[in-house]
Amino acid sequence: MKPLVSTSAENPFPQLLLDRVSASSSCLCVGLDPDVDRIPDHLDSDDIGSLIVAFNNAIIEATHPYVSAFKLNLAFYERHGAAGWNALAATLAAIPSGIVKIADAKRGDIGNTAGFYAQAFFESLDFDACTLSPYMGEESIAPFCSYPEKGVFVLCRTSNASADDFQLHGDTPLYLEVARLAGLWDSKYPSTVGLVAGATRIDDLRRIRSAAPRLPLLVPGVGAQGADPAEVISACRSTNGPVLVNSSRSVLYASPGRDFAEAAGKEAERLASVLKA
Amino acid sequence: MKPLVSTSAENPFPQLLLDRVSASSSCLCVGLDPDVDRIPDHLDSDDIGSLIVAFNNAIIEATHPYVSAFKLNLAFYERHGAAGWNALAATLAAIPSGIVKIADAKRGDIGNTAGFYAQAFFESLDFDACTLSPYMGEESIAPFCSYPEKGVFVLCRTSNASADDFQLHGDTPLYLEVARLAGLWDSKYPSTVGLVAGATRIDDLRRIRSAAPRLPLLVPGVGAQGADPAEVISACRSTNGPVLVNSSRSVLYASPGRDFAEAAGKEAERLASVLKA
Repeated sequence: MKPLVSTSAENPFPQLLLDRVSASSSCLCVGLDPDVDRIPDHLDSDDIGSLIVAFNNAIIEATHPYVSAFKLNLAFYERHGAAGWNALAATLAAIPSGIVKIADAKRGDIGNTAGFYAQAFFESLDFDACTLSPYMGEESIAPFCSYPEKGVFVLCRTSNASADDFQLHGDTPLYLEVARLAGLWDSKYPSTVGLVAGATRIDDLRRIRSAAPRLPLLVPGVGAQGADPAEVISACRSTNGPVLVNSSRSVLYASPGRDFAEAAGKEAERLASVLKA
Repeated sequence: MKPLVSTSAENPFPQLLLDRVSASSSCLCVGLDPDVDRIPDHLDSDDIGSLIVAFNNAIIEATHPYVSAFKLNLAFYERHGAAGWNALAATLAAIPSGIVKIADAKRGDIGNTAGFYAQAFFESLDFDACTLSPYMGEESIAPFCSYPEKGVFVLCRTSNASADDFQLHGDTPLYLEVARLAGLWDSKYPSTVGLVAGATRIDDLRRIRSAAPRLPLLVPGVGAQGADPAEVISACRSTNGPVLVNSSRSVLYASPGRDFAEAAGKEAERLASVLKA
């Protein structure tokens, strides 16, 4: 096994993560998922790209002191085509140095195709990490893992209701088999391999932490999805493996009015105080 | 169960598929996956978007009489950012009416996020169908299934070597559980739900056809990946459920020279004759 925190030049991602958690004193990750129907009216613009960037910039400005990472779900940008991709690049450029940038892409494809997605997120765009779907196996993860300075988070146990359809399949539930193989991949490849483990299934989160004590966890489901941040921290901190806890909507839409950014900042500060490093 | 071919206004996708298979006399699907490093030199251009569109247009022009569908893997476009998205839209516009257009996206996300991806592929862009990953369960498929005139193909058994990592998990292998639930979703939702089943695992393809006799199958792995088209057709045609057999590289890169389009047309014609309707 690799050490928990590699200080070698080969594997700086966990160090980036832990440095930032230390600098912001919390493991809060904020999801920059701009739903144009919920962007406050006073930011109205004919140009959808400018509207998204104005909203995101205000959220970044107000919340960045409290966050370790920003996670951008690609769907919120892709739905706007080329304008959305330009807004994605502009948003990334506005994130202050040192904060971890995660592409929530949930991609899963093979060989050269996966390599092109990796190139899109890690070269054309300047993400530090991305989320991946494990269904097609190791070959769909490996091309993302050839970047020593990057990290990947493999979907393991998700926070949605229908997650049980397949993630519990088998005597050993599928999600624990994913956790097991992710640990092997983390040892095998230059990149850091972590897991996405939803906050809403706290017992499963404990099982994942126990099965993968050293892997970074990305934990969505706090905030609008209702999980208790303190309970999540307790489950993930049974070891000292790195953890990021994500909230999107509760921060972005803390207020629908002109004070949206101020309200987002306050909600981020409140969450960060519960998610203390 | 819905009838094999719905002629009702609620569900025109299988009819579109079968009409086109009948018109082209084959179930060949060609993957428009333009790898810029393999585009013939004489098409050289400083503008990556124009280069992709010029290559795709020539391939479409040469091959379209022999194909039922074109499948566009999004990675080959996304790697070029906004320029890639514009090339994707321009390529779609060049595909003659009546030919099925499939977004090979393998997306899998939840709730409103999945809805935004659906909007991207089915509204902003004019795809007839898209591929999806099942890992997050029914909620990740449902938002795509509210479009009665569209189809989805859920990853079931893929053609890559590491597909066994998770797809065989459990006493009933996971891929057959995916096939079972996809059948339920096909009955439940307005859209047509089909399966992606790789050509390289012919026995599993037979098991899938037996478990899901009426669902449309999208079968990659013929051509560069080495599966025998005649054997694939025999496995899929054990029932009269619809089938599309995809080849990408063997058609696109049939020749590296100035005759690339002519060579692609000949290879498509050859494959179509083996994949006779």
